[in-house]
Amino acid sequence: MTLEFWFEFASTYSYLSVMRIGSVAQTAGVEVRWQPFLLGPIFGAQGWNDSPFNIYPAKGAYMWRDLERRANAYELPLRRPSRFPRNGLLAARVAQIATGDDWCGDFTRRVFTANFADDREIGDEAVIRSILIDLGRDPDAILERATSPENKHALKMVNEEAARRGVFGAPTFFAAGELFWGDDRLEEACAWLGGRE
Amino acid sequence: MTLEFWFEFASTYSYLSVMRIGSVAQTAGVEVRWQPFLLGPIFGAQGWNDSPFNIYPAKGAYMWRDLERRANAYELPLRRPSRFPRNGLLAARVAQIATGDDWCGDFTRRVFTANFADDREIGDEAVIRSILIDLGRDPDAILERATSPENKHALKMVNEEAARRGVFGAPTFFAAGELFWGDDRLEEACAWLGGRE
Repeated sequence: MTLEFWFEFASTYSYLSVMRIGSVAQTAGVEVRWQPFLLGPIFGAQGWNDSPFNIYPAKGAYMWRDLERRANAYELPLRRPSRFPRNGLLAARVAQIATGDDWCGDFTRRVFTANFADDREIGDEAVIRSILIDLGRDPDAILERATSPENKHALKMVNEEAARRGVFGAPTFFAAGELFWGDDRLEEACAWLGGRE
Repeated sequence: MTLEFWFEFASTYSYLSVMRIGSVAQTAGVEVRWQPFLLGPIFGAQGWNDSPFNIYPAKGAYMWRDLERRANAYELPLRRPSRFPRNGLLAARVAQIATGDDWCGDFTRRVFTANFADDREIGDEAVIRSILIDLGRDPDAILERATSPENKHALKMVNEEAARRGVFGAPTFFAAGELFWGDDRLEEACAWLGGRE
C-alpha cells in the first residue's frame, strides 16, 4: 500500500508532514511516494498571486500561531521564515528527479529544515547546492538534470495532474483514490490505506 | 474553565462540533459557552459574497467528501443540504438570546440537525418556530425578543467582537485567550484549558 504525499516547498503545513511522515507511515505500515508540486499555478487558477495566508491577514496570523503550537507538540524546531512564501521552484525540480530514488525524502527534509528552522533562502541555488553536497550528491550533475527541458516538462505535467485530481492546497495525500488535505489528516490518510476507516 | 464555542448555523464543520462538543467537553471537564455569530460579514470583509466552498469548487468538493468521512467516523447523520449555505440569521438571533440559558445547546443542535441531517430550510421562520415548540418554548415571545432592535444590536456587537478577536471562519474556539479554528481542533482547544498542551 502506497500513500502519495504531495507537498510544496514553501508550504508551512507541508513542513510538519515532511518531518512527521516517515515515522507515521512506518507505524501504519505504508509506503510513501514523495511528490513535489507547485502551489503557485494552483493558487493562480483561484485568482491568487500570493499565499492566501498573506492575502487574508487574520487567517495568516492564526496559521503562524497554530503552526507554532503544532511544532511544539511534535517537538519540531520552527523559526518563522523572514520571507514567506519562498520560491520552491528549484527545490521542486531537484526533488522531481529524485521521486523514484531513496534520497528524495532526505533532500526534502533538509530543504524544509533550511526554510522553516534555519530561515535560509531556499530559492537560492547556492543553498540547494550546499544541501546536495551535504547529502554526498554531485550538485552540478543534479542541477543540470533538474533544470533540463525534460524535467521542467515533467514537473509541469505533475502540476497539471494535481489540478486534474482536485488538489487545491498542500500537503495533500492520496490514499487508494481518496484525497486528504492538511497535515492534520496524515494519520487518517494512512489509516484509510489500512482499511481501518 | 470555560471554552468559548463560536459557530455559524450555515457552517458545515460547525455541524460536527455542535454535535460533538457536549461529550468532548464533558470528558475534558470544561464548561462550554455557546456563541452564535455570522460568517457573512466576516467573509464580506475578505471580499467574498458567498461561501468560499462555492467560490472555490475544488475546495468545496473536498469539503463535502471530508465532511462525509468525518460524520461517518463520528456516527453522525448527514444529508448534503439541497441549498448551501442557508441563511442562519434568524437562528442566530434566537440562539443569541439563549446564550446565558441552558436551552441554547438544545436549540442549536436541533437547528443544525434540521439543516445537515434533515435538509430543512432553517432560514424559514416556520422551521425555527417548530423547533421552539418541540423544545416546549413559546415561539411568539422568543421570536419577538429575537428580532427586537436590542437583540439585533447585540448580535451585531458579537460579530464586531469576532472580527476584532481575529475570527475568520467557523467553528472557532477560544481557550484561555488562544484561538483554535476548525472542528479538528476541538479536542486540542479543550486540552489547552486543562494545561495539558
